[in-house]
Amino acid sequence: SEDAAVEPLTELLGSLDARETARAVCELPIEQQAELLRRLSPEAAVEVLDTLPEVTVVEAVEELPADVAAAIVHELPSDDQADLIGAMDSAAAAAVLAELADDEAERIAELAAYPEDCAGGLMATEVVALRDIATVETTLRRLRAGATKLRDLDVQYAYVVAKGRRLVGVLRLRDLLIADERSRLTEIMIADPLSIPAETPLDELIAFFDSNSFLGVPVVDGEGRLLGVVSRRAVDEAAEEQATSDYRRSMGVVAEELRSMPVLRRSRMRLSWLSVNILLNVVAASVIAAYEETLSSVIALAVFLPIISDMSGCSGNQAVAVSMRELSLGLLRPSEWLRVWIKEGSVGFLNGLVLGGLLGVVAALYAGNVWMGIVVGGALAINTLVAVLLGGVIPLALKRAGVDPALASSPLLTTVTDMCGFFSALSLATLLLDKLV
Amino acid sequence: SEDAAVEPLTELLGSLDARETARAVCELPIEQQAELLRRLSPEAAVEVLDTLPEVTVVEAVEELPADVAAAIVHELPSDDQADLIGAMDSAAAAAVLAELADDEAERIAELAAYPEDCAGGLMATEVVALRDIATVETTLRRLRAGATKLRDLDVQYAYVVAKGRRLVGVLRLRDLLIADERSRLTEIMIADPLSIPAETPLDELIAFFDSNSFLGVPVVDGEGRLLGVVSRRAVDEAAEEQATSDYRRSMGVVAEELRSMPVLRRSRMRLSWLSVNILLNVVAASVIAAYEETLSSVIALAVFLPIISDMSGCSGNQAVAVSMRELSLGLLRPSEWLRVWIKEGSVGFLNGLVLGGLLGVVAALYAGNVWMGIVVGGALAINTLVAVLLGGVIPLALKRAGVDPALASSPLLTTVTDMCGFFSALSLATLLLDKLV
Repeated sequence: SEDAAVEPLTELLGSLDARETARAVCELPIEQQAELLRRLSPEAAVEVLDTLPEVTVVEAVEELPADVAAAIVHELPSDDQADLIGAMDSAAAAAVLAELADDEAERIAELAAYPEDCAGGLMATEVVALRDIATVETTLRRLRAGATKLRDLDVQYAYVVAKGRRLVGVLRLRDLLIADERSRLTEIMIADPLSIPAETPLDELIAFFDSNSFLGVPVVDGEGRLLGVVSRRAVDEAAEEQATSDYRRSMGVVAEELRSMPVLRRSRMRLSWLSVNILLNVVAASVIAAYEETLSSVIALAVFLPIISDMSGCSGNQAVAVSMRELSLGLLRPSEWLRVWIKEGSVGFLNGLVLGGLLGVVAALYAGNVWMGIVVGGALAINTLVAVLLGGVIPLALKRAGVDPALASSPLLTTVTDMCGFFSALSLATLLLDKLV
Repeated sequence: SEDAAVEPLTELLGSLDARETARAVCELPIEQQAELLRRLSPEAAVEVLDTLPEVTVVEAVEELPADVAAAIVHELPSDDQADLIGAMDSAAAAAVLAELADDEAERIAELAAYPEDCAGGLMATEVVALRDIATVETTLRRLRAGATKLRDLDVQYAYVVAKGRRLVGVLRLRDLLIADERSRLTEIMIADPLSIPAETPLDELIAFFDSNSFLGVPVVDGEGRLLGVVSRRAVDEAAEEQATSDYRRSMGVVAEELRSMPVLRRSRMRLSWLSVNILLNVVAASVIAAYEETLSSVIALAVFLPIISDMSGCSGNQAVAVSMRELSLGLLRPSEWLRVWIKEGSVGFLNGLVLGGLLGVVAALYAGNVWMGIVVGGALAINTLVAVLLGGVIPLALKRAGVDPALASSPLLTTVTDMCGFFSALSLATLLLDKLV
């Protein structure tokens, strides 16, 4: 029978390390990934899902019958449950929730309603909450009695709550080790602990864990009631994911492409960005078209136009990268464009002189005409300055406008610097046309 | 007196949050940063340093008198001590070490000898090591007696060692809470724990913490003796730093530039990359120079050359980004270039058709000549395919050659695709010259 294959399959997967499992499973078509998950126990399925990229997990679980998917979801930690249900298409998500116990489904749906990158979306609801009226002795007895539960929870803090689950203190579990057994929890806890509202965005969470060395921070609602805990680990992972996705998006890979996805889908993902880019390129090149007459008289200029546009793009992107870094380190505020201009202006002026000088010499030698060097070098010098001034402030402007700088900075910058570079070179050449021919 | 200003200064700094401190201190010239640190208590100085970017920390501490620097270094956790001493210039580092107690200096120098991004460089040596012959009861008594020491250490595990500090087990400190007091540590510890050698590189550490949910992993020498602990947090931070530096480096910001640095230094940092780039650009543009005759007959082509080169660069960079992502997720091995070519070939062929078709129509309409559309569209289609095939495998080849793909992929790719794009367009035009004029 088909099911006889399950035992060796589970053994095989158990013998692979996480990366090998991910490689093997990602190679399978999506239906076979689902088939594999269906045949494993829910616990084993969770271990496999743990190794896969998020987009693959969502698609594979969507392919499963709702009852099988529900059994797997039941095994996940609360924050992963919410992420998965939130990322699934709504019909599939509803079907899975319908298969779960009412209280679990309700809890997951509540968590999934938070945006993924805020405290509510990152928090886990598995917490050890202790009543403020307890003593160390009764607490230790309670923990030892329910020892397995504590053993399963990989948490280092307990939270002390008053009536109505109102948060009043935090307790490092290991501090119970060195406490006098007769003390009340309220005597050894850290009173009035820092806590954050569920709406706190990722940026603020990163800043919070940067300034505090906690492993986790409790999340409370408007009335100060304990909702869950955001761990440093969850925030670090979200921050790392954001950083690498900034890098990918700066390259124009807008979605979570994997080569195991169908060709048409991958092609469409990439074209969505390329088609915007081709439009911007055509707009920029229209400047050349407007000066076709000048260009046909000074054809050597055609050799240098792509160099001027590419080099200015690079200089501008350096300024973009420094601004993005300073923004993320908190060293720069979106309003400080004047400071950026002063700082970038001096570097842009210097680098423009050096690069313009270099390329000008090459152009003069190539054309055997000093004026050609002046046109090409002058255009690159001007455009380098323009590019760093623009590049330095574009991330600030986008951030203020609420647009993600990592996504939009580079295409915006290169379009403008292309146009400006073509315009400087060709209008200078038109002005000095009698010296050039 | 000058020192009367210290109290209000400390108070002011205490009232700022970490980001505001960083902003304020980074605005100061380096000598004044050092002066500020000198006036603070070592403990307060460490709090300020905690908020600053690493490059600023190193420079500010290098400016300090050796005895003041040594007092500050003494307050740092062991891994930060080693990072700082390792990053300082060797004369300054030696002067600081000479001011420290011999055993501390020796320990720091040993740690600093490890490369920063391996287990030895990331580990902390502050660990709770317990002897294997102890019981839970004697351990609890020992911990309670030395309670302050445990309170200062933000650790969750203790390590059980045999004679000669040989690692034999790991103990979650909180598990002592629920253990029978008469048990021996060897009964409740996790025996034969996972451990890693000090040479383990960051890549493997990331993979380790991806497949294991531990908060830390013990580091051992060749004889299995406990050297220290690498925490998940240290690895996450190193990984995040690597990811954001990949992003910056892809933009040509090679070093840790901050706008508070002197203009000449910033200019030099950026030029070191730009000057390589201008050389590559000149090489690529030499292809246009070789076809100047064709170009002067078909001047409209000059409008489309920058578009072809820019669009192919974008398509190629998308393939680079997908390969880098799959490499880092462990879904792709450096040897699998054939798989990448098959997967990229199909997408490149499709996208080349679509983009080439679009730009071809624009070119035909602009020039009023169908053959112009065929030359421009054909060149873009061919070059899109070439760019994705190249872009897909360049990170694999660089990784095999031991070069960092984030640094070298993009300039290498765009130079080749520029040349190839110019060549396709101009040689096609030369071939069809009688149809174009």
